[in-house]
Amino acid sequence: MPRTIVGRKPVIEALKAGTALETITLLAGIGGKPIEEIRRLAKERNVPLSEVNREAFRALARDQMTQGVVATLRQQQRLVSIETILAVARQRSEQPFVLILDEIVDPHNVGALVRTAECAGVHGVIIPKHHAAPINATVVKASAGATEHLAIAEVTNIVNTIERLKKENLWIVGLDGNGDKLFDRVDYTPPIALVVGNEAKGIRRLVKEHCDFRVKIPLFGKIESLNASVAGAVAMYEVVRQRTRA
Amino acid sequence: MPRTIVGRKPVIEALKAGTALETITLLAGIGGKPIEEIRRLAKERNVPLSEVNREAFRALARDQMTQGVVATLRQQQRLVSIETILAVARQRSEQPFVLILDEIVDPHNVGALVRTAECAGVHGVIIPKHHAAPINATVVKASAGATEHLAIAEVTNIVNTIERLKKENLWIVGLDGNGDKLFDRVDYTPPIALVVGNEAKGIRRLVKEHCDFRVKIPLFGKIESLNASVAGAVAMYEVVRQRTRA
Repeated sequence: MPRTIVGRKPVIEALKAGTALETITLLAGIGGKPIEEIRRLAKERNVPLSEVNREAFRALARDQMTQGVVATLRQQQRLVSIETILAVARQRSEQPFVLILDEIVDPHNVGALVRTAECAGVHGVIIPKHHAAPINATVVKASAGATEHLAIAEVTNIVNTIERLKKENLWIVGLDGNGDKLFDRVDYTPPIALVVGNEAKGIRRLVKEHCDFRVKIPLFGKIESLNASVAGAVAMYEVVRQRTRA
Repeated sequence: MPRTIVGRKPVIEALKAGTALETITLLAGIGGKPIEEIRRLAKERNVPLSEVNREAFRALARDQMTQGVVATLRQQQRLVSIETILAVARQRSEQPFVLILDEIVDPHNVGALVRTAECAGVHGVIIPKHHAAPINATVVKASAGATEHLAIAEVTNIVNTIERLKKENLWIVGLDGNGDKLFDRVDYTPPIALVVGNEAKGIRRLVKEHCDFRVKIPLFGKIESLNASVAGAVAMYEVVRQRTRA
């Protein structure tokens, strides 16, 4: 099966970003401004666009929420290396700001985290090759197309990656419900990598041991945890807040 | 149709909170720790529990993701008044901290915002009676059960409610992509109501005009907005941060 991007906004974002799309397929008869924009951008980018009837479209959509739009990708999502992520920071003359997702398994959470990371000016996201949601169509859609704009690296070993980043002078800050510091008590103006852990289990013990700081977001109610994508967002915007103030 | 709570964690939270449940139904044959906890709590709380076969369960689940657990509520979610929300603050000897959802239509966003609000120590959430997702089973599930622990008020007119809260000395802070202040440049230590607007359109013009401050969360990428529940979370935790520091 070819990899797909579904939904109006994600496909518009992919077209704008010049993503290598193989084809775009619309459900026959749909219209409106976003669809007109897709037609215009597809023409501009030389992406073949076709319309198919409901039955053929359903086969293509495979139970996804498509809003009548499916694009197939010409190739695999272009993954980058750690070096590329650090080069993005250098290019922007900013202190590196990296997000590491340690075994986030829900593609909606991965997508939401990538979207927030793109908004917060993160230079790149690092995800493990195994035991994590890969960058699939659901992630692309949940990210509102942010996967197209952000450098994403897949690595085999998060601990080795952390050690690599430390050599590049990054401080590694893990979000941890049992952390010994509040999330806002770390100085985030130096080079930083934030680590967000698995939805149920949090950051793995070994990864945790390699973090320079383990910070917690305080909870005042009876619910035991924040959603992983919310916790990541709160921490990312604390980095933004401190750097904007600095 | 009776109102339902579905999913293991939401039902456990409802039982712990003493929510008036009519019945709990399990898919026959399921087990594991959370199910044992549901059995134990149901016995403790005198909630009748039964098991049904896959076919009967499917009829009850009505396409929801239930994890094999459906509870029916004995009555409507008990909604509270604005006075009750302010009384919660007084009881905790804290400056009021209220969340107003202005026409959030996606029940997953309402649930996510209620969950984060409960975690952040918000005293109550105010939602409009119309043009907004009501507190239904999807909201309850997306909130991870937080709807059971948090005071929620439904009001007919958000503008009137804002004027009421102003008379009670609350400052009204609206999240607005075109706001004239950064989100962290307002003093949140006095009594505060945060207003989060509709996913696509943001806060309505009239509501915006009644806000004391319109604050924006800065964006550094190409994506045009944060998810509404993420924006709300970032703002709520800025209130927490300032109050924890104060």
